[in-house]
Amino acid sequence: MNTSLSDQDLVEIITEEVKNILTGNADSYITSDLSRDDNFAKSRKVPLGISNRHIHLTSKTFHALFGEGTEFEPMRPLYQPGEFASKHTLTIVGPKLRSIPNVRILGPLRKYDQVEVSLTDAIFLGINPPVSSSGNLGDAAPLTLVGPNSSVYLEKCAIVANRHIHMTDGQAASMGLKSGDYCKVRIGGEKGTVFENVLIRTNDSWKLQIHLDTDDANAANVRSESHVEFIGKM
Amino acid sequence: MNTSLSDQDLVEIITEEVKNILTGNADSYITSDLSRDDNFAKSRKVPLGISNRHIHLTSKTFHALFGEGTEFEPMRPLYQPGEFASKHTLTIVGPKLRSIPNVRILGPLRKYDQVEVSLTDAIFLGINPPVSSSGNLGDAAPLTLVGPNSSVYLEKCAIVANRHIHMTDGQAASMGLKSGDYCKVRIGGEKGTVFENVLIRTNDSWKLQIHLDTDDANAANVRSESHVEFIGKM
Repeated sequence: MNTSLSDQDLVEIITEEVKNILTGNADSYITSDLSRDDNFAKSRKVPLGISNRHIHLTSKTFHALFGEGTEFEPMRPLYQPGEFASKHTLTIVGPKLRSIPNVRILGPLRKYDQVEVSLTDAIFLGINPPVSSSGNLGDAAPLTLVGPNSSVYLEKCAIVANRHIHMTDGQAASMGLKSGDYCKVRIGGEKGTVFENVLIRTNDSWKLQIHLDTDDANAANVRSESHVEFIGKM
Repeated sequence: MNTSLSDQDLVEIITEEVKNILTGNADSYITSDLSRDDNFAKSRKVPLGISNRHIHLTSKTFHALFGEGTEFEPMRPLYQPGEFASKHTLTIVGPKLRSIPNVRILGPLRKYDQVEVSLTDAIFLGINPPVSSSGNLGDAAPLTLVGPNSSVYLEKCAIVANRHIHMTDGQAASMGLKSGDYCKVRIGGEKGTVFENVLIRTNDSWKLQIHLDTDDANAANVRSESHVEFIGKM
């Protein structure tokens, strides 16, 4: 999702993409076709989205933090249809009183407040969030969210998002998979890494894409959008 | 190595260890025996050391940064015989003009200046370091190191340390391995992960130990010292 990109980050990513296309090394370019149903079973490749820390809010919490009259505005669309990076960011603060600024709110607004962080972030902030699916906040960790209009202390909001792949039921079926299954994927290279316990999630409006957090992506030494190799069910 | 531990971090680690021993869940406690030659082939377990960002310096650079009269003082021994965390830390600054404070210098002093960072650190600092072995600085990235007496700009100092296992020749032989081989290891759990391209390094004064950086450890969701499962040669 790469939700807190600076202008410099964007310039670097665009430069990298153009370079890849010009040098014929256009992995990310090619992956634009990987989301087609018939290509998944053939290629066994899944486009990679690297999820930086980000926030989901309810309309009520958004307006408390930004002011009653503030409109929730999109900045740019994300890869999944209907989802977007908003123009709005918050500072998050943990019990060690350390803060991370410029954490982007993703849209649309939801029925719950949730902060998705990496374990690196969690250690820095001094919280102990569970590895969890979006919306499963029973064991989530507390954080303070600071906005321009006010701040809120959310006792159960922070999770480390579990590894997951978005796909259609058709794509799942083409690989003998169904929603709720767990699988393994691999990224090659100097820091080649196999990721286990990757949850399959299906919805016919989704495009094929794996979400790994920045710890996973950085462990495997991948810096820009690329793809992973599907290994099989756990 | 966990080289920039705060008092609070230390309290947390000690509490965790005591809790593990009291609850009979004493993974880290048990691993103290894993460094014995005959145990490696039997258990296929390797004690894990998580390397936080750290610095190695020459005597010349140390004295430039801290002052001619300053003695290089140990703070506490590390797991490998003769190695230690020193009392001294520096602030490192990259080309995005962002800095990371309190980066610990490890001892003894060496014949080269080197800063080992995670890719997470590298992205924050705005550098593009190679994945490299200690001392291989041909493609290393630039950083400014700031000390209490002065600062230095080192054009080739920053690397992402490659994954590696320290062991004796006897331990290597007991597993059909030799120095320079590459192997795979695994950490289980909710974010189970297989790490490829782990370099075998041998020296008869070393204790059996794998070094993974904080990105690798955090990807696999391990926060305290533990062990990895040895899978086999690449």
